[in-house]
Amino acid sequence: MTRAHNFYAGPSAIPAEVLQEAAQEMLDYKGTGTSIMETSHRSSDFDAVHNEAINLVKELMGLGDDFEVLMLQGGASTQFALIPMNFLSSDASADYINTGTWSKKAIKEAKLFGKVNIAANTELEGGVFRAIPKQADLKLDPKAVYCHITSNNTIYGTQWSQFPNTGNVPLVGDMSSDIMSRVFDPKPFGLIYAGAQKNLGPSGLALVIIRKDMVAKIKSGLPTMFNYKTHIDENSLYNTPPSFGVYMMGKVLKWVKANGGVAGMEKINNQKAATLYSAIDNSNGFYTNVIAKEDRSRMNIVFNLKTEELEKEFLKLAKSNNMLGLAGHRSIGGVRASIYNAVSQNSVNALCDLMKDFASKKS
Amino acid sequence: MTRAHNFYAGPSAIPAEVLQEAAQEMLDYKGTGTSIMETSHRSSDFDAVHNEAINLVKELMGLGDDFEVLMLQGGASTQFALIPMNFLSSDASADYINTGTWSKKAIKEAKLFGKVNIAANTELEGGVFRAIPKQADLKLDPKAVYCHITSNNTIYGTQWSQFPNTGNVPLVGDMSSDIMSRVFDPKPFGLIYAGAQKNLGPSGLALVIIRKDMVAKIKSGLPTMFNYKTHIDENSLYNTPPSFGVYMMGKVLKWVKANGGVAGMEKINNQKAATLYSAIDNSNGFYTNVIAKEDRSRMNIVFNLKTEELEKEFLKLAKSNNMLGLAGHRSIGGVRASIYNAVSQNSVNALCDLMKDFASKKS
Repeated sequence: MTRAHNFYAGPSAIPAEVLQEAAQEMLDYKGTGTSIMETSHRSSDFDAVHNEAINLVKELMGLGDDFEVLMLQGGASTQFALIPMNFLSSDASADYINTGTWSKKAIKEAKLFGKVNIAANTELEGGVFRAIPKQADLKLDPKAVYCHITSNNTIYGTQWSQFPNTGNVPLVGDMSSDIMSRVFDPKPFGLIYAGAQKNLGPSGLALVIIRKDMVAKIKSGLPTMFNYKTHIDENSLYNTPPSFGVYMMGKVLKWVKANGGVAGMEKINNQKAATLYSAIDNSNGFYTNVIAKEDRSRMNIVFNLKTEELEKEFLKLAKSNNMLGLAGHRSIGGVRASIYNAVSQNSVNALCDLMKDFASKKS
Repeated sequence: MTRAHNFYAGPSAIPAEVLQEAAQEMLDYKGTGTSIMETSHRSSDFDAVHNEAINLVKELMGLGDDFEVLMLQGGASTQFALIPMNFLSSDASADYINTGTWSKKAIKEAKLFGKVNIAANTELEGGVFRAIPKQADLKLDPKAVYCHITSNNTIYGTQWSQFPNTGNVPLVGDMSSDIMSRVFDPKPFGLIYAGAQKNLGPSGLALVIIRKDMVAKIKSGLPTMFNYKTHIDENSLYNTPPSFGVYMMGKVLKWVKANGGVAGMEKINNQKAATLYSAIDNSNGFYTNVIAKEDRSRMNIVFNLKTEELEKEFLKLAKSNNMLGLAGHRSIGGVRASIYNAVSQNSVNALCDLMKDFASKKS
């Protein structure tokens, strides 16, 4: 069996060690005679798995006791609605910074619940995005109930290198595609959320982190499952959790911890991104990435070749070389290498070697 | 490795063959060099898995082209809210039949969205339930937008043996704990939903089946993820699906098909239930089940011993004999054997043997 070089944007690479462990435990989790998938979420066996995963999130992100950690279902897309449903109302306003497709989707849902102030918008003609706004360009509302950002834009390959300063207004961050990839101070964030399927494990699980002072601001009269308080009060066990996803996330987080924690991930991620951007920038224009250096994503690296035909040829060659998921998002085309935590430097090197070979043959 | 006798109420037993296949494919799904968990939901590999699972639902349940099959997240608990959110409004009324804890939860959410007529209620003093109402006892509203039932009550061990006749009012059925366990005519149902973690696979996936004439009745202005139309229009791929759950459900359904389909399951389930009820009824009162025979669940078989102490002793003995999950629901205690599709006659026989032994020692 040869493992592929996995550049999928999500669901995406999971460490092989984690998958091996899961395979070994599939019919008999720790001598119980059942898979963890077949085990009641009210059992002590699952409870240990569940709480270990939550505690690893707190430890790895340095959350301390200021934050509640929830594991929910429905992906980040459900959070687009739940955040305004819980915190926004028709007589209040929230700031949203529009940096890409996912920001736009979050904005669309927020408008169903209250006023939305677009504090910045980097959308260009033709609906594409190439930049993260500067602090000086933000039109922040000091009375906003929160300010929503997308920390990394998977489709356009941009990323906030420094999060905006919103003063007393709590930041809300969609960190689906870069959570646990770099160290940051969580304190300005009232809420952080992330679909698991990029840096945390399999899809079907969303991590939601809520700063405790936000809890008092949750509106009343909400459907039980859509009220964050339900899940806070029940430690994310109000109803049956996506237990296999929780189990896998726990294993991925143990792997993160064993590999230097989030700081260790950041160091490797910076190296991987530097390798790949260098291959692009030193290709004499054969490969191009037009994002300003300070806004470039270290998770999703997008680039173009001179023609669509060349791009197709390159993607075909990559596939035949065991490299998966390199086609750009269907909305913009081009090439995209998603190099999340579980993608190795070795995979990035293999891609860069192929890029050099292809460029020298075609130049 | 010894596999346990798995009587968990959910998450619950999955066929060992299914788990073996999943373990074998964990690092390399069909020569792709990745797990299906690591594979984009937009890939042709996942698309085939996804559509095969949907088609198996249609085939096994005999749904024909009259129904849409959705695979969503959030469990049945989320459906408790989504159903009235999509179909009920303040100027309309829905019928709900209250047969247990899950019905009560569904009723609570419906009241947030419109009027609720309790068409029947079998709750006894002390909040317990022992029966399914008779057709003659239903106070149905012919103008109701739907009539909601819980087809099987996991906690109280009751089950509709014949679904109620609601005339032109579409039935809505929470079938979380008995879907695919018996043959029934889906046509009277406008909507059927089920958390996967009992008869369909791992938790984190909810199957929702909507009759096509219901689609036009969906309200407008709903959040994108909470609108059934979003998921119908996008074949449940609007956002990243719980892909490993979908993959596992597909494997479980192939196992159902290979074992005689739903009719095959029903035959075995009837036999298993007959074995266990017979052990109870022939114990000279050592074990008791007070549910009327026609209302007894074939999925969750509850019984009591003469004292709580005897129950504890029996549960401890069962655990030491490799039998898991036999404690009754924390709200009512007693003993409960959940014998879903993947629980074998062999496991039921082992339980009955232990019950006989214990009774003879203690009588």
